Amino acid sequence: MTAPNCETAKIVTAAMVVIGDEILSGRTQDKNVTYVATSLGDAGIQLREVRVIPDDTSEIVAAVNHCRHKYDYVFTSGGIGPTHDDITADAIAAAFDVGIDYHPQALALLSEMYEKSGIDFNDARKRMTRIPDGATLVDNPISKAPGFRLENVFVMAGVPNIMQAMMQSILPELTGGDKVLNRTIGASIPEGKIAESLGALQQKFPTVSMGSYPYFKKGQIGTNLVLRATDTVQLDLACAALQSVLSDMDATFTLS
Amino acid sequence: MTAPNCETAKIVTAAMVVIGDEILSGRTQDKNVTYVATSLGDAGIQLREVRVIPDDTSEIVAAVNHCRHKYDYVFTSGGIGPTHDDITADAIAAAFDVGIDYHPQALALLSEMYEKSGIDFNDARKRMTRIPDGATLVDNPISKAPGFRLENVFVMAGVPNIMQAMMQSILPELTGGDKVLNRTIGASIPEGKIAESLGALQQKFPTVSMGSYPYFKKGQIGTNLVLRATDTVQLDLACAALQSVLSDMDATFTLS
Repeated sequence: MTAPNCETAKIVTAAMVVIGDEILSGRTQDKNVTYVATSLGDAGIQLREVRVIPDDTSEIVAAVNHCRHKYDYVFTSGGIGPTHDDITADAIAAAFDVGIDYHPQALALLSEMYEKSGIDFNDARKRMTRIPDGATLVDNPISKAPGFRLENVFVMAGVPNIMQAMMQSILPELTGGDKVLNRTIGASIPEGKIAESLGALQQKFPTVSMGSYPYFKKGQIGTNLVLRATDTVQLDLACAALQSVLSDMDATFTLS
Repeated sequence: MTAPNCETAKIVTAAMVVIGDEILSGRTQDKNVTYVATSLGDAGIQLREVRVIPDDTSEIVAAVNHCRHKYDYVFTSGGIGPTHDDITADAIAAAFDVGIDYHPQALALLSEMYEKSGIDFNDARKRMTRIPDGATLVDNPISKAPGFRLENVFVMAGVPNIMQAMMQSILPELTGGDKVLNRTIGASIPEGKIAESLGALQQKFPTVSMGSYPYFKKGQIGTNLVLRATDTVQLDLACAALQSVLSDMDATFTLS
């Protein structure tokens, strides 16, 4: 779509690859996608795709290689712990066709931590310091074992509070584009009643993405109308036009 | 992996395609994946991949075409309402290269419902009866507007309670394989301590998938060890062996 009245927006995109048998089995509800989506959105980066794949090397290689060529950034979660099923680091090395070895800085970091706490720094724990050649470390202020960055791919833990801390470590490294701003109008009107007018408004404001999400709360039918755009002038104009349409239909609504 | 002591398991696989700008923006937390994963698991079907993609025709076509050739079943959620951003039915028709038109049965169904409730059956609402050629309808006992099935692809609504009802309508149509059984052992032991023994057990029981998920609850560090297999004998043997290892380490644990 072209934006007739504004300069072309600078769009920066991302994908997330969730490596997790436990999500696919239904045992665990993913909590990381929403956090990553929101953090990236605030940084002017649009999350365009999420793939949830099993703990399987060839699946990880295929997903990461597809996504790193298609999007500006890729974020993975899961599979960087000390057990045999933690295969993400090796899979990323395979995806980039580079070697993998114990990383001196990661080794020193964990060695010091385990020594201080009197816990055996065994081979399994040392596995967590194996980092693909050429990667830089991502700080993990929670449990120390680092994530890493290789080119545009960021590799993070799956445990939500650790992943969130790693995301915060990563954010200063990212270069965002124009931020997508949004307005949500919650209207006491069935989706099928506003649909035609909303479609006409979408035609009129091609640079504003208009989404419609019906809700059913306490026996009340309503619709959340979500407008999103990088251009605040167009967004506000579209929002005002939609509010005017809703008023004409005698619908009550709230803007947030 | 081969299973030396049992017949080859019958594996039936599935993928889910979540069509949803609202998930990718971080505005909405997906609740459908866990439901679909669990329902399929109970029916002997393994969910192997989830893709969350935007409300974009070419993205839907690419994801659905990839997944329908790779997996036995594909389930989509989202994008079948009355508004301009509901493009799933057209995208599925494009993916299969078939036509799309108002479906007589769907038209009759909605026509009757709207007539009874005195609501205008306008063009936007009629849009919900556009179904790709050759598809059969999926019953929606909640709000009537149907989903549909085309070959091995099932198209469902995105609103969770409607999607769940549609999933229930679909389940009798599916042919499952051997069910993946699971045992979870919650152990009061850090992941790094059990890792080596768990890896050795994984080698010993190649048909049992062993996953390790650390947890941090109320200051306590522990690990959920999840064993999964289609062969109950192997599963129970592996489970007993793991419990024996944990006992030897003086770890307390619960089995569920």
